[in-house]
Amino acid sequence: MYKEILELIKENKFKELKAKLLEMHVQDIADLLEQTESPRELLKVFKVLPKDIGAEVFSYVDSDVQEKLVVFLTDKELKYILEEMYIDDAVDFIEEMPANIVERALKTATKETRQQINQFLGYEDHTAGSIMTPEFIDLQEGKAVKSCLKRIKRLGKDVETINVLYVTNEARVLKGVLSIRDLLLCDEDTKVGEIMNENIIYAETTTDQEEVARLFKQYNFPALPIVDKEKRLVGIVTFDDVIEVIEEESTEDISKMAATTPSEKPYLKTSPFKLWWNRAPWLLLLMISATFTGLVISKNEALLSSGIYGILLTACIPMIMGTGGNAGGQSSATIIRGIALNEIEFKDLFKVMLKEFFVGVLLGLTVSVACFGKIMLIDGLPFKTQGVDAMSALIISLAMFITIVMAKLVGCALPILAKKCKLDPAVMASPFITTILDTLSLLVYCGLALAFLI
Amino acid sequence: MYKEILELIKENKFKELKAKLLEMHVQDIADLLEQTESPRELLKVFKVLPKDIGAEVFSYVDSDVQEKLVVFLTDKELKYILEEMYIDDAVDFIEEMPANIVERALKTATKETRQQINQFLGYEDHTAGSIMTPEFIDLQEGKAVKSCLKRIKRLGKDVETINVLYVTNEARVLKGVLSIRDLLLCDEDTKVGEIMNENIIYAETTTDQEEVARLFKQYNFPALPIVDKEKRLVGIVTFDDVIEVIEEESTEDISKMAATTPSEKPYLKTSPFKLWWNRAPWLLLLMISATFTGLVISKNEALLSSGIYGILLTACIPMIMGTGGNAGGQSSATIIRGIALNEIEFKDLFKVMLKEFFVGVLLGLTVSVACFGKIMLIDGLPFKTQGVDAMSALIISLAMFITIVMAKLVGCALPILAKKCKLDPAVMASPFITTILDTLSLLVYCGLALAFLI
Repeated sequence: MYKEILELIKENKFKELKAKLLEMHVQDIADLLEQTESPRELLKVFKVLPKDIGAEVFSYVDSDVQEKLVVFLTDKELKYILEEMYIDDAVDFIEEMPANIVERALKTATKETRQQINQFLGYEDHTAGSIMTPEFIDLQEGKAVKSCLKRIKRLGKDVETINVLYVTNEARVLKGVLSIRDLLLCDEDTKVGEIMNENIIYAETTTDQEEVARLFKQYNFPALPIVDKEKRLVGIVTFDDVIEVIEEESTEDISKMAATTPSEKPYLKTSPFKLWWNRAPWLLLLMISATFTGLVISKNEALLSSGIYGILLTACIPMIMGTGGNAGGQSSATIIRGIALNEIEFKDLFKVMLKEFFVGVLLGLTVSVACFGKIMLIDGLPFKTQGVDAMSALIISLAMFITIVMAKLVGCALPILAKKCKLDPAVMASPFITTILDTLSLLVYCGLALAFLI
Repeated sequence: MYKEILELIKENKFKELKAKLLEMHVQDIADLLEQTESPRELLKVFKVLPKDIGAEVFSYVDSDVQEKLVVFLTDKELKYILEEMYIDDAVDFIEEMPANIVERALKTATKETRQQINQFLGYEDHTAGSIMTPEFIDLQEGKAVKSCLKRIKRLGKDVETINVLYVTNEARVLKGVLSIRDLLLCDEDTKVGEIMNENIIYAETTTDQEEVARLFKQYNFPALPIVDKEKRLVGIVTFDDVIEVIEEESTEDISKMAATTPSEKPYLKTSPFKLWWNRAPWLLLLMISATFTGLVISKNEALLSSGIYGILLTACIPMIMGTGGNAGGQSSATIIRGIALNEIEFKDLFKVMLKEFFVGVLLGLTVSVACFGKIMLIDGLPFKTQGVDAMSALIISLAMFITIVMAKLVGCALPILAKKCKLDPAVMASPFITTILDTLSLLVYCGLALAFLI
């Protein structure tokens, strides 16, 4: 079937060859390549193809052809192909190749591609495995510093960092760690086994990336070794990856606190439909939950729609609910951040609640006194709202005081309890707390008004 | 006056000397020390004092006595004194000492103390100067790699990092940068001037720490050199400091978005009064600004307190305002974070607004359809709220739609405009946007109801 083409290859008639190939389906070109015996001929076909088609063909051919081809590719070509391939194809390719090609491929790929390949290779998203890189220098326990320095000189320019070096035994099990500084500052005949630090801090491939970030922050490492279940060294995470993780975790918390599902991509690269998808469920949930506040109001219709105080009481609803939401949000945001930074734990619950209660009383006093003044001087005088008198201003201010204290307690306790129940504290933030507080504060407000103003 | 004591010193009667000294005020002991001529006698007095009193005395004596004393102190003693001293005293001490003692003192001090001393030495808070450390290795342009490696071996254990090395000329002006890897991988006779990278990324002492963090994220440096106005190398900022900066900046943004002045200290170490002080002005401001919403409601009293739709319309106010706040908060939080991560700039304003408009329309449709259903099926049927019919449900849903689209536009535009006006985008977030949206959405709501339901 491909006889004519094979002839063109042999005769180096590249122009005609290219014309023929461009008429073919990529799967057919792949078939052709699989029938080509000599790597040299294989390469002729491949190099004649336009870059993009070549990449497509590459992902269609069997792994043995891939292996034959890849040794002839420059890093730039390999990179281009890896970026063009679908990740599952790239992973198939990676899984079939021998170790040295895998290493070269992962090294060549962009960081993003490498992360994806790592992920697809079985490491779950947000684990140490998904952010690690396989480019590190491992040294043998029994080797002298001198020979280690030679190894570093040989491998040094291809690894992510030489600042931290890892010592393994024959089974690649992590035995120790040392810095390039340790190596440089000691005698050249010393064995690395003698100077290495055996008290190693490491993470497993399945460790959550947030925990990896925590270890970095606690110990100020430039890199952290990542091991598999058998404690074999499989990768390292470097500080620059961790900086990204820290930013990402903060972004996630901020998104959740604003009732949005976090986006994986930067805003400008996220499609409007994705944004809609991330935001709609929350807006719907919160809208439906407003049924409770509506219910409180409609059950108190007699109070709010009639009598001399009706208008004033209705007019102050947004102020009471808004202040409750703001007061609760202040506490919950502070506590959620404290939990994220490992400053606040479950054992601190009562300490935190006591503090927030005290702060709540202080704030409640400040704001309710101001509220009393505002009602009497602003609502009462220039705007002449009906129903403003000392009694109604007092009752509204009292409701304000109770709302603020309540908001502080709910706002600080819910995130800590959520964490304890293995829920995400950030999800518990403003939106849900606001909905709970809206209902509670309306109940207090209407209750007080009913008791004293009717 | 101190004759008797000076006698005791000379005769080495330490027990009596100590007893005498403990009866004296520290300022008097300082005076005594200033009258002691020989450094040896000076030391006798100092070493006889209990540690804490010694430290206090140290901060009282003149700088020349300090200089005489400090050479006899172990690092541990010096560290203790530095930690015990008030920072302004420590800064006075640092400013008066010769360079070698300053270096030793800063090296001995804990990171926190050093930061504070750096700050007080004239670098403003949140600048590169305030977070840098003076412990780096500088190499001379003309030196060979071999001699540089010797220098590194000599100084290596006292500096913060040897992973990045800086090349300066005789005037200490920064000329180039190279990594320990560059040094190890080349011939030992090469001059560092030949292998150094002259395209240096650096910051000035006055550069904002957020900009320093941005440079780290962009270039993935393990350390960044900090220079003064004359481009003389004065310190380095390492990745662990930057991780702290990044956490701090995120915490600040989260605090501001929740209408709290950021706290410098962890939550559990912040006093309730400080928390009150950080939160009260915001709560007061937002409470007072609720005057606008109150005004809209009281001006529409006829609509809200009477007629068959009065109760339903009042009951839906929290839902409309809440959804507006949530929808605006979603956009503002996303945009504020995008600005913080340098993903969104002023030039993107219209692109962002267009996208948010589109997302707003999608969300508005989704939520208002759900809202129509909720009113008819929940408020209308089980709860039998008065005034529920297709017309009123339609008008409320229409108000909901307009509110959401408006919320998206205000929520995305305000942070970008704030940034353009050199205001803090985070301060523009939820609280202010919510207040603006509350008023706008009530106006739309009452306007529509007046037009169609009366």
